Amino acid sequence: MPDTIQKSPIIEVGPISGFPEHSPEVQAIFDGVLEKIEAGYRRTGATRIETPHVERLNVLTAKAGGEVTKEIYALKRARESEGGRATDPLALKFDLTVPLARYVAQHQSLLPFPFRRYQIDKVHRGERPQAGRYREFIQADFDIVGRGSLDVIADAEPPAVINDIFDSMGIGEFVIRLSNRNMLSGLFQNLRLDAAQGKRIMTLIDKRGLGTERLIEELILDVGCSSKDAEQIVDFANLHVDIDAPEDSLGGYCHNEMLEKGASDLATVVQGALHLGVPRERLSIDLSVARGLDYYTGTIYETTLLEHPNLGSICSGGRYDDLASSFSHESFPGVGISIGVSRIVPRLIKSGILSGVRQFEDHVLVTKLTPELMPDYLKMTSKLRRSGVPTEMYFEDKGLGQQIKYAARKGFGYAVIFGPDEKAKDKIILRDLNEGDQFEMTIEQLIAALMPKG
Amino acid sequence: MPDTIQKSPIIEVGPISGFPEHSPEVQAIFDGVLEKIEAGYRRTGATRIETPHVERLNVLTAKAGGEVTKEIYALKRARESEGGRATDPLALKFDLTVPLARYVAQHQSLLPFPFRRYQIDKVHRGERPQAGRYREFIQADFDIVGRGSLDVIADAEPPAVINDIFDSMGIGEFVIRLSNRNMLSGLFQNLRLDAAQGKRIMTLIDKRGLGTERLIEELILDVGCSSKDAEQIVDFANLHVDIDAPEDSLGGYCHNEMLEKGASDLATVVQGALHLGVPRERLSIDLSVARGLDYYTGTIYETTLLEHPNLGSICSGGRYDDLASSFSHESFPGVGISIGVSRIVPRLIKSGILSGVRQFEDHVLVTKLTPELMPDYLKMTSKLRRSGVPTEMYFEDKGLGQQIKYAARKGFGYAVIFGPDEKAKDKIILRDLNEGDQFEMTIEQLIAALMPKG
Repeated sequence: MPDTIQKSPIIEVGPISGFPEHSPEVQAIFDGVLEKIEAGYRRTGATRIETPHVERLNVLTAKAGGEVTKEIYALKRARESEGGRATDPLALKFDLTVPLARYVAQHQSLLPFPFRRYQIDKVHRGERPQAGRYREFIQADFDIVGRGSLDVIADAEPPAVINDIFDSMGIGEFVIRLSNRNMLSGLFQNLRLDAAQGKRIMTLIDKRGLGTERLIEELILDVGCSSKDAEQIVDFANLHVDIDAPEDSLGGYCHNEMLEKGASDLATVVQGALHLGVPRERLSIDLSVARGLDYYTGTIYETTLLEHPNLGSICSGGRYDDLASSFSHESFPGVGISIGVSRIVPRLIKSGILSGVRQFEDHVLVTKLTPELMPDYLKMTSKLRRSGVPTEMYFEDKGLGQQIKYAARKGFGYAVIFGPDEKAKDKIILRDLNEGDQFEMTIEQLIAALMPKG
Repeated sequence: MPDTIQKSPIIEVGPISGFPEHSPEVQAIFDGVLEKIEAGYRRTGATRIETPHVERLNVLTAKAGGEVTKEIYALKRARESEGGRATDPLALKFDLTVPLARYVAQHQSLLPFPFRRYQIDKVHRGERPQAGRYREFIQADFDIVGRGSLDVIADAEPPAVINDIFDSMGIGEFVIRLSNRNMLSGLFQNLRLDAAQGKRIMTLIDKRGLGTERLIEELILDVGCSSKDAEQIVDFANLHVDIDAPEDSLGGYCHNEMLEKGASDLATVVQGALHLGVPRERLSIDLSVARGLDYYTGTIYETTLLEHPNLGSICSGGRYDDLASSFSHESFPGVGISIGVSRIVPRLIKSGILSGVRQFEDHVLVTKLTPELMPDYLKMTSKLRRSGVPTEMYFEDKGLGQQIKYAARKGFGYAVIFGPDEKAKDKIILRDLNEGDQFEMTIEQLIAALMPKG
């Protein structure tokens, strides 16, 4: 065997379908959105938790339907070396709700209740890749979980958080559409429909855009409703409900305890959200909001951008009776929302609503005119950073023009120019990369000009 | 078949060995550390990138040694449904360097060079669980990558970043120990030792605490050095080197081009770091810093806490000639550091250097005395949040004492108390949970008192 050293061949690299990765500029847009979401969650006094990416497979499949179970990624060692020692199969979490349920059940004795937590994290699903679907994506969840009970006023928090966050993002006007599942369920009870039919109907209603006629047809043919019942269901879902008096709008449909409870809870939630500062025009009661496949049992929310209804709901959620029933005998009712960041952000960028321009406009590049002045460049850089100004120093041998282009390409707002002439005068030149003009000043003046205020 | 509804059995939950998860209090300590690291990285003008958790297996194994390859977690669908369709095997990244190399090779035409990036992310290794070893852990990496070339002054940045970050953490005094691999390599060249021997020696030197005698013994028995060579190697590694004139301290050992280049580069780096504001007493040249198993080719760094030397290096790194040689014909020299957050933070907490007390001292709990005043509680909460004060509202029916305990347990600094008496006077009571005293004031005074300054 020859023992010459062989250079390994180059391995081809490229994107993996369903696993998005961004340029630094687009990453900065994502980061800006995530910061605003996190700040909004934190303003409510919520605490962050971080669960591992990995859970036991039986925990993940405890409540998952067949569709999701098929999509779970299990782990195996690339080269198994433990000689077949049996261990619990491990797998990647596919959402943040199952890990929250497991976390609450596992650590219940250590947590203060109501437990307000947020988690912003990547989750994995082995879906068939298709447009707008990812196998790795970011969810940003906020939940309030009670132990034994949770007052219905807790349900007024999510609309307030949604309002705060999307207001801070400045992506245009939006409306938070609320309903309460007990209203549709009460109606189904009155119509003597069973639970399976109710579930099917919620899923059908949830598919907006079916159109009234088609929906009635499906209710009759698919669910087996009478045509009278089908019409009543569609009329109910389309009912115009006054946010200040939801009970009054329901005249003909009441006389069902569940429906009445749903309407009265909805009234409490809407008034609570108004008191929490959500502008009236951003709240709407919409009985066609059904969240068909989800496990909600009371209040439900969806959020739509007025100018971009085709984005669908940008933040959804609701109230659930018992978060951790698979993992604990105790009951943990809760309410929560989730923002599907990976799905929303690329579409907001594409629509021109979010842009990356000027993400780094407070940044400075200290350019290099001559290697002899390197000690000055280093000291300047250090002084600026200590004053809180993000500062990069250029150290390759390139012309000033190329260095300025480099700074502009990175979206930096300023460049500092310093050569022997400036050294002699004990001044520097500050170039404003947005305006193109430049000013001579002392280092102290430079720091005073660029230091973050406050 | 009976169609009664069966309640599923409770699934046992518990920790998974090697996959740490924290209480909200400990998570807050981690978050505080990560924020400081990120702020330090950003002050250098570095941009954040985020690569997927998943890479193609052949990318991950391109450079990994056998030990690491055994530890890679590959993915498989929990229930395979694609009928054996062959796809590239996917696996979880085990560090942030391989993904950086792949990212730079793949996106080189879109990136500005020198490319300064940081990435703070979880990585996975299927190690046998043992104390202080994790299967999922956080790395916080900072690198500067050139295209074709990267000036040696770039190597002065990591010590400045390390100094800035650990200074901001306030975890006591530390020293950054520097060396340059070419110095030991030059010595080995002079001693006519081959590359394999050199590698073995670096690994041995790296094991501090072997003691001089034992080290000499191993060099002779294990590497096959003559006893004269072994002594010379140990003397060299223990040499006291003046940080202001490393070349002068090497009198007897010079006359080797590689060694001299190493010493002169080291001098440039140390002077650069001093100009960048690293205090002299935090820099030390230590030729026994060898980073045995790593792929560094020039400057190398380690950082130790003076009062906790047993923690080992809390931040290490170095210069590498060619980051992406497995993935691109172009050369990408770089320099970088990594902070092993998951390993350090628990030990700093255990040693009492980091603590979670008062992480939320700016937080307020608006307590609930009577349900009739709920609209006032909601409005107060909204006003405080809008003024930037993180505020939680209590809405369960519990006594005031229990509510105050809840707030104290969460580490909140303040509670607002408001009942019918206060309502009549148009005042509120602010209780300081640290001091235990309380004050009557108007809502406007409350906001003025708690609003974040600046």
